[in-house]
Amino acid sequence: TRNIDLAVVAGDGIGTEVVEQGLAVLDAAVAGSDLKISTTEFDLGARRWHATGETLTDTDLQRIREHDAILLGAIGDPSVPSGVLERGLLLKLRFALDHYVNLRPGKLYQGVTSPLAAPGEVDFVVVREGTEGPYVGNGGSVRTGTPHEIATEVSVNTAFGVERVVRDAFARAQARPRQHLTLVHKHNVLVHAGHLWRRTVEAVNADFPDVTTDYLHVDAATIFLTTNPSRFDVIVTDNLFGDILTDQAAAITGGIGLAASANINPDRTAPSMFEPVHGSAPDIAGQGKADPTATVLSVSLLLDHLGLADEARRVEAAVAADLVGRGATVRTTAEVGRDLAARVAG
Amino acid sequence: TRNIDLAVVAGDGIGTEVVEQGLAVLDAAVAGSDLKISTTEFDLGARRWHATGETLTDTDLQRIREHDAILLGAIGDPSVPSGVLERGLLLKLRFALDHYVNLRPGKLYQGVTSPLAAPGEVDFVVVREGTEGPYVGNGGSVRTGTPHEIATEVSVNTAFGVERVVRDAFARAQARPRQHLTLVHKHNVLVHAGHLWRRTVEAVNADFPDVTTDYLHVDAATIFLTTNPSRFDVIVTDNLFGDILTDQAAAITGGIGLAASANINPDRTAPSMFEPVHGSAPDIAGQGKADPTATVLSVSLLLDHLGLADEARRVEAAVAADLVGRGATVRTTAEVGRDLAARVAG
Ligand SMILES: CC(C)[C@H](C(=O)O)[C@@H](O)C(=O)O
Ligand SMILES: CC(C)[C@H](C(=O)O)[C@@H](O)C(=O)O
Repeated sequence: TRNIDLAVVAGDGIGTEVVEQGLAVLDAAVAGSDLKISTTEFDLGARRWHATGETLTDTDLQRIREHDAILLGAIGDPSVPSGVLERGLLLKLRFALDHYVNLRPGKLYQGVTSPLAAPGEVDFVVVREGTEGPYVGNGGSVRTGTPHEIATEVSVNTAFGVERVVRDAFARAQARPRQHLTLVHKHNVLVHAGHLWRRTVEAVNADFPDVTTDYLHVDAATIFLTTNPSRFDVIVTDNLFGDILTDQAAAITGGIGLAASANINPDRTAPSMFEPVHGSAPDIAGQGKADPTATVLSVSLLLDHLGLADEARRVEAAVAADLVGRGATVRTTAEVGRDLAARVAG
Repeated sequence: TRNIDLAVVAGDGIGTEVVEQGLAVLDAAVAGSDLKISTTEFDLGARRWHATGETLTDTDLQRIREHDAILLGAIGDPSVPSGVLERGLLLKLRFALDHYVNLRPGKLYQGVTSPLAAPGEVDFVVVREGTEGPYVGNGGSVRTGTPHEIATEVSVNTAFGVERVVRDAFARAQARPRQHLTLVHKHNVLVHAGHLWRRTVEAVNADFPDVTTDYLHVDAATIFLTTNPSRFDVIVTDNLFGDILTDQAAAITGGIGLAASANINPDRTAPSMFEPVHGSAPDIAGQGKADPTATVLSVSLLLDHLGLADEARRVEAAVAADLVGRGATVRTTAEVGRDLAARVAG
């Protein structure tokens, strides 16, 4: 038997509901194999912060590190000041565990209605840098609250940080049928960061000669995501542009109810983290209305990361089959989870 | 007679072609009135840079300042290193002339096919800040070209700069039927800049009590622009987010061939600048394929800025009428311009 120790951070709002179904599908995927999943739940998020003032302590982080992977639901609640949980918990996990590849597939499954009139075949993946850019928390303000306030946000980009994520993106592009990589940035304005990204893509391309590349400014990328999303294969981009583009990608492929993500530490010096792209959706929390599909697809990414490709494909196939038949029937979170688990169990 | 002195920067690529038609429509709009348009052409852009190494000299800037307004075609050419003309000419104009309101309507005209399956009634306007944010050019790199390179980009935001554009956006919202303003930022990550924007919107709201407001993170805004663009009335946002959202807005309302923009100095301490959102499109330059409509709609914004509301409405109405009948007929740049001018004269 192979033991898989999973840290579970259900978090806030619908997080608990969708994670429960994700775990049920994960169980179904490994049932009958020699894999054993054991889970440790971490009480992190708004409730904990209100009770203790803590977001993520060194002890929490140390304990999380001892796991093979992390399944995360959603973080954030309107009762907590903006930024506290995002910076103090979610981004702290991504940064502390060196999740430098934030992987977000953009795939339009059969049976899913896109808001685009003619989406075509949409099947790309965004490799979003996860540990640099404007997300580093390197900003501040002076004369705060006065008419003379100055607030800055510094985007930090290093050759080290850009190269490793670009290399990962090239490797993914090489392994896909179309072998195409699009760099998205804004190098005509953000000249220093942008030129670092551009030079890096050019340099790393030498090690992946089969991969063709092109470049789009981030503004133009939003146009193509609207008018011709099937042109994309692998997109590599910085932390903030990746945040923006992957929400747009989710929108054109059926919504954030379906959008999965993986925060990967490819060097495996710390556990990777798998989470739906959506947030905690406090407006529908506790009502069984949340779609657990994004979490289930994140479980599929988790299985892939653990080297369990067969199991990952079964989970993905279960989702694909379920989506074809969805139509207008409304099911609860638990019902969707149960149906997906049943399909995986097969 | 009232004289209007217009500085014309046709620029690169299709810039010349579309500006020619924009000027023809402008002439038609003022024909028979006591308005006299005189134009001064400025040789700026790639050709000038190749010939002289200059992008925008102090003398150019001084001469431009003496005009009532600027009509700009497009700036940029692949033969010029990325950033040189953008920073040295286009952004230099916006910054030097204090164009702190970058106004970009997002309107789906009748007869225009949106790539969205069910766009609904789309009629909003983006007030993009034009003189701050990550566009200030406050970045740099050290150890450039080595494995130890660090490149930074600093977003600079001031209470002064944010308040004046927020105030302008509120005034615009108040003058529109729906009286709604949406702030778009990312204050859960860019906490310092984001909170400055948020506090400012809250404070200025006191002076515009009729205007309702809401807030969206920039990533969520791209979702709503895809799934429910009719929810937007006025959007106020920073320079970079505005750049991204207005290209997406153009995409959902029929493409950048139709997207107009105004770089406004509301204090009138320097001439405002009117330009299509699209670029120089070198791939189709000189072939009569460019759609001059975006420039013509920018001329309508120019007329509005000069207080010529009737003329502005006539130009806009001409475009609206032309769009209803467009269908599949392909016309040259000059033909579209001629038809629009005829309708305006009409
Ligand atoms: C909640 C927020 C900090 C986060 C981000 O900006 O990365 C979210 O939008 C995401 O995309 O995972
Ligand atoms: C050309 C570029 C500098 C410019 C910008 O980023 O503002 C353009 O994209 C625009 O939107 O006008």
